[in-house]
Amino acid sequence: MRIPILKLHNYLLISIQTELDDKTAIQFQEDLLNKIHETWATGVVIDLTSVEIVDSYIAKILGDVVSMSDLMGAKVVLTGIQPAVAMTLIDLGIHLKDVPTALDLEQGLIKLRQELEE
Amino acid sequence: MRIPILKLHNYLLISIQTELDDKTAIQFQEDLLNKIHETWATGVVIDLTSVEIVDSYIAKILGDVVSMSDLMGAKVVLTGIQPAVAMTLIDLGIHLKDVPTALDLEQGLIKLRQELEE
Repeated sequence: MRIPILKLHNYLLISIQTELDDKTAIQFQEDLLNKIHETWATGVVIDLTSVEIVDSYIAKILGDVVSMSDLMGAKVVLTGIQPAVAMTLIDLGIHLKDVPTALDLEQGLIKLRQELEE
Repeated sequence: MRIPILKLHNYLLISIQTELDDKTAIQFQEDLLNKIHETWATGVVIDLTSVEIVDSYIAKILGDVVSMSDLMGAKVVLTGIQPAVAMTLIDLGIHLKDVPTALDLEQGLIKLRQELEE
């Protein structure tokens, strides 16, 4: 099953509520980029609240998704990053330095609006 | 994989982007009711844009989800009902008479706000 991508105004909302396996993650990357292209979305919120753990491959894909979306003109906000996920990302050198983060979906949307207004 | 349920303010948003099999549909019903209970959501938007077809069992579950959510105090708006899905629902006598519907997620949220303000 693919991860659903919801379109709300100019934004795309994704809530990942499953542990990501390699195939699902790659499919998600492809689906998200296609959806940005189709909808001309200017912002994306990816909520990771329910992702307890990621391995190095998934962490790399997440980092890539952010950079790729950025290249396509859509700003990504990550929300609900769990402790173990944060540790894996930093351990792997995926610092996501310019990526805004927030606690949950609501805060993420507020942040996205702020970022895009700047 | 379960269907993700997104919480945004007092509302729950669901976009079903897969053909529903029996197991997924039952799991979704249970997950949604639990989430309404947990979050005290007052409204639910279920977007069916990507559901091309439903069988009688799935149609019944959809009708049930609406009634059950209503009993729990959450108003449901259905969006993006496709022609074949509309036909199946009516053929089966599931008229969803008091259920507001809308074209897409954005319109669904607007409708939900109107319904809840009344």
